[in-house]
Amino acid sequence: MSKFAVMAIKLYGHPLSAPVQSVMFCLEEKALQYEFVHIDLPTGQHKKEPFLSISPFGKVPALQDGDLKLFESRAITRYLAHNYADKGTPLMPSDPKKMALVSVWMEVESNIFEDTISKLSYGHQEKLGKILEVYEARLAESKYLGGEEFSLADLHHLPVINYLSGTLFDGKPNMSAWYAAMLARPAWQKVVERMKHSTKK
Amino acid sequence: MSKFAVMAIKLYGHPLSAPVQSVMFCLEEKALQYEFVHIDLPTGQHKKEPFLSISPFGKVPALQDGDLKLFESRAITRYLAHNYADKGTPLMPSDPKKMALVSVWMEVESNIFEDTISKLSYGHQEKLGKILEVYEARLAESKYLGGEEFSLADLHHLPVINYLSGTLFDGKPNMSAWYAAMLARPAWQKVVERMKHSTKK
Repeated sequence: MSKFAVMAIKLYGHPLSAPVQSVMFCLEEKALQYEFVHIDLPTGQHKKEPFLSISPFGKVPALQDGDLKLFESRAITRYLAHNYADKGTPLMPSDPKKMALVSVWMEVESNIFEDTISKLSYGHQEKLGKILEVYEARLAESKYLGGEEFSLADLHHLPVINYLSGTLFDGKPNMSAWYAAMLARPAWQKVVERMKHSTKK
Repeated sequence: MSKFAVMAIKLYGHPLSAPVQSVMFCLEEKALQYEFVHIDLPTGQHKKEPFLSISPFGKVPALQDGDLKLFESRAITRYLAHNYADKGTPLMPSDPKKMALVSVWMEVESNIFEDTISKLSYGHQEKLGKILEVYEARLAESKYLGGEEFSLADLHHLPVINYLSGTLFDGKPNMSAWYAAMLARPAWQKVVERMKHSTKK
């Protein structure tokens, strides 16, 4: 098999975009080789062809795997988890009931957590506090958000949390322990390295 | 088997909530019997116990299937599609690449379509117009949003579209044909019946 074949996955994006970081995190957890195609957001490269032919709404990330073109970070990571189920870290349980709980907490990240954090500058601090209480209670029930194993549910939270103050989880022992475990993952450290490299440019 | 066993699925919500309608639509497509537990939103029943023990953020819908408690509509419909794959209409392909495209268009509904429609009163009409152009192009490529078959990607759009004017798709033949096909689905008509019944109360 040619070297080209193993580099068939292309990730299009910018390393400072949180959803792009989620996909990088996922690719590292799955131990998949990939080519990072830099899309220059400041010059609006994401709003022009040829990028629009992969991501028609002009949003990063996008992913190409052979002839499959995908966009929307959570759809991409679900695909990687299912299609490469036997590679790297399992990120999505095959049991439908366990899978359902991972989906619940992926939706919470998208519709409740990320949504509130993106509005923090509009005074949603109190709302975030109440949300974190539910998280703290969830992590008293199970080791990770989606269940007893690390999954896509945890993975998608990290780039968003990374925007916030490190004191966010003060007084929340379950969340603090969970966050420390997230930061320690070698796959996340590889993402952080790539972000640093990008900032220096 | 007792009659109780076949009524093991409970859907908690209000029939006029769009995400609740998505789950009803899904349950009807899957030909699953279920008990509808009315949660009275005007009196804040969703923000109190015992509902909070099923849906800790106090949001409808929630679903109980045996001892499994789920919330977030898209997580619930994914669960129903996977766990009852052999019942009623197949709503999620098993092939990972086909499944990925359904996920892409579920994410588009959540993060782009529904998000823009919920902000229409803030002058997002132009943005919606551009979004619908991408949809029209998508439906030139494939019969349904997620691929050649009806899927969760289509299903989640309908309750949101239902809020809008019927002229939304004027001049968009692919979207008009798709919308007509959606409205004609017997499962959707059952949801509409339940909504009418609720309005009369």
